Amino acid sequence: MTVSVQDIDAARTRIRAHVRLTPLERSETLSRLTGADVWLKFENLQFTSSFKERGALNSLLRLGAAERERGVIAMSAGNHAQAVAYHGERLGVPVTIVMPESTPNAKIAATAVFGAEVLLRGRRFDETRSFTEVLAAERDLVLLHPFDDASVIAGQGTLGLELLEQLERFDDLLVPVGGGGLLAGVSLAVRAARPATRIVGVQSEHFSAVASAFGTGGTAQAGADTIAEGIAVKTPGERTLPILQANVDEMHTVSEAAIERAVFTLLEVEKTVTEGAGAVGLAALFSAPERFVGRRVVIVLSGGNIDMMVLSSLLQRGLVNSERFTRVSVEIPDLPGALGKLTQAVGAAGCNIVELNHQRAFGVSSARRTRIELALQLRGAGQLPEALASLREAGYEPQVVNSDNVGQS
Amino acid sequence: MTVSVQDIDAARTRIRAHVRLTPLERSETLSRLTGADVWLKFENLQFTSSFKERGALNSLLRLGAAERERGVIAMSAGNHAQAVAYHGERLGVPVTIVMPESTPNAKIAATAVFGAEVLLRGRRFDETRSFTEVLAAERDLVLLHPFDDASVIAGQGTLGLELLEQLERFDDLLVPVGGGGLLAGVSLAVRAARPATRIVGVQSEHFSAVASAFGTGGTAQAGADTIAEGIAVKTPGERTLPILQANVDEMHTVSEAAIERAVFTLLEVEKTVTEGAGAVGLAALFSAPERFVGRRVVIVLSGGNIDMMVLSSLLQRGLVNSERFTRVSVEIPDLPGALGKLTQAVGAAGCNIVELNHQRAFGVSSARRTRIELALQLRGAGQLPEALASLREAGYEPQVVNSDNVGQS
Repeated sequence: MTVSVQDIDAARTRIRAHVRLTPLERSETLSRLTGADVWLKFENLQFTSSFKERGALNSLLRLGAAERERGVIAMSAGNHAQAVAYHGERLGVPVTIVMPESTPNAKIAATAVFGAEVLLRGRRFDETRSFTEVLAAERDLVLLHPFDDASVIAGQGTLGLELLEQLERFDDLLVPVGGGGLLAGVSLAVRAARPATRIVGVQSEHFSAVASAFGTGGTAQAGADTIAEGIAVKTPGERTLPILQANVDEMHTVSEAAIERAVFTLLEVEKTVTEGAGAVGLAALFSAPERFVGRRVVIVLSGGNIDMMVLSSLLQRGLVNSERFTRVSVEIPDLPGALGKLTQAVGAAGCNIVELNHQRAFGVSSARRTRIELALQLRGAGQLPEALASLREAGYEPQVVNSDNVGQS
Repeated sequence: MTVSVQDIDAARTRIRAHVRLTPLERSETLSRLTGADVWLKFENLQFTSSFKERGALNSLLRLGAAERERGVIAMSAGNHAQAVAYHGERLGVPVTIVMPESTPNAKIAATAVFGAEVLLRGRRFDETRSFTEVLAAERDLVLLHPFDDASVIAGQGTLGLELLEQLERFDDLLVPVGGGGLLAGVSLAVRAARPATRIVGVQSEHFSAVASAFGTGGTAQAGADTIAEGIAVKTPGERTLPILQANVDEMHTVSEAAIERAVFTLLEVEKTVTEGAGAVGLAALFSAPERFVGRRVVIVLSGGNIDMMVLSSLLQRGLVNSERFTRVSVEIPDLPGALGKLTQAVGAAGCNIVELNHQRAFGVSSARRTRIELALQLRGAGQLPEALASLREAGYEPQVVNSDNVGQS
């Protein structure tokens, strides 16, 4: 069963009353930063904070009466789970969600709040999947695949129809790709209406199966850690890949550092929360701005479900990267008053001390001396050389020790 | 010179092409959480991320040709500075901004990017102010006050007109109050059109001058640290206070903990970044939900300019508060293998170790033993007792040591 533009039109009619038409806004600041004319599609503002509701709802609405009564099952710890659970509850369709055993409570709770039965099964992905398939057969439940399904692809394609309505012309379209469901649907819709648009899919360089199938991004990568876990998919869909190959012009891969920078920038500049997977489109623009200069670029921010602990770390890493946070090591005499003198000098240099540690055993030139490691908040990029000079003038030999912040370039 | 509804109407006409009509959206999740029917006005999505543009632009547009040519001056390190600089540049009006000497570079840069001349003068507020007044006189510049000015009040009032258009009925309106410019304008507009609306101003309990003038919030507080520095104003305006007294029904004060919770929740649930001052309306709802149950409540999110380092800390504190991050201290033998055994037990209890410190000198029962302090990431609220029980079963005596997280209740 292939997917046609008519299927996407029909999906639009089916879901439009209960899926939000999310805003598409121009970003003045990102345009200035990159030289492109940047427009953002805020799909992170769906009720469950991702585009997955489109496909999930379309699938649920296409079920027969008997299927609806028996219910549906899905395997997902993420956005697909929340989307199915939310719309299942609204429609009175019983929902079973299977998640890996290691799933964080926050994700379980975000799905269970919609009345779904959440089962934790399997340590490895394969185990979770076979359990799900067996249970679906046993209980006679319809299994809703997260991407490799015609109804899901048609549902995701409705985002493309919205873009066509919201903006009468754009040159480039940047869309995150995991299993390829979103881009399959969107590329079908956009390609049909505006053949000249350059449609670009974006993957993490740590999960690059689709890019690899396109001959970009080298050998398919899968399995490394990524902040874009929403698109950490090992194998492209059998239904999605041919659609992508027919309609997508380019596949780009982006580094973890570029993804982190995109999430940070969207938070600081646009005041919006995106997950890693949701920000790869902007990461691609940041990574190759010369490819987009002077062009009108639409970037789909596909989701906003990011762990708050991860976001907190990402912010600190972003501050290091933008030279607003740094670590400096200084040796001082191990005597009363010596630390007071050092910290005063640091204060006089305009730095706020965020953390301080003593080191007596390692890297110290004498037993009468101690090494102080300082985490410092700076006024901004450019202050560090000035602050170091000020410490040197006061007689210290400060060393910058940020080397383990390797995720940022 | 008083401010009338006609002045606000005129301001609307004057500024509407260049100030964004920000979205007003219902929040399903906040409504479920609080029992009220919650609507959010996303004024943090103005270009310079706060409502201040309304008043600044109205003031700039009311200048005579000669005044425009000479230029304007303002004293502010925050949202008023950015608003004046941005619209001044657009209109070709020279802008001078005076900030205290200690202003972080990020704030200087956010203003200087719009071509304003930024001067850093004065260690104390009074010094900065007198410098500004002297310079305004010397250079014959129009001084744009951040709140106590009829044009500013009328400009801020345009937000009230938008609310009246965007939502045909609401029971309560919650607005942040510092100097009172925003609420003065908004309350004038809303009171005139909908006399029955309950209009509530909100201050931090650390800066409560207006609440105090209303007889709520006790003695006026001013001077303590607050995360809501955007409304840390010691003295209400001479023009704003009488307008507030005539039009505002209630003044509430909120704790720092409630403000932090509001910023955290808006980020996690609504995927939107607010500054402390911008979130006090939601903090007021959280602090007294029984006053708003079953009522339609509009909350103005007045700004989104929060330091990323502060936001990172706030996220971690919020995780502690919601029992997703904790600190535990455990005594173990100071022997090879002992730490391996402990950390394995912690892993088996399902906790992720985020930080680990040894303590040999303090709080240890024997020189042969050491105290390990662990910062642990939990699966979610409810996991802690279970994790502690699991550690006790493994033979440890874990102590929870979160007591210095005093900002959260």
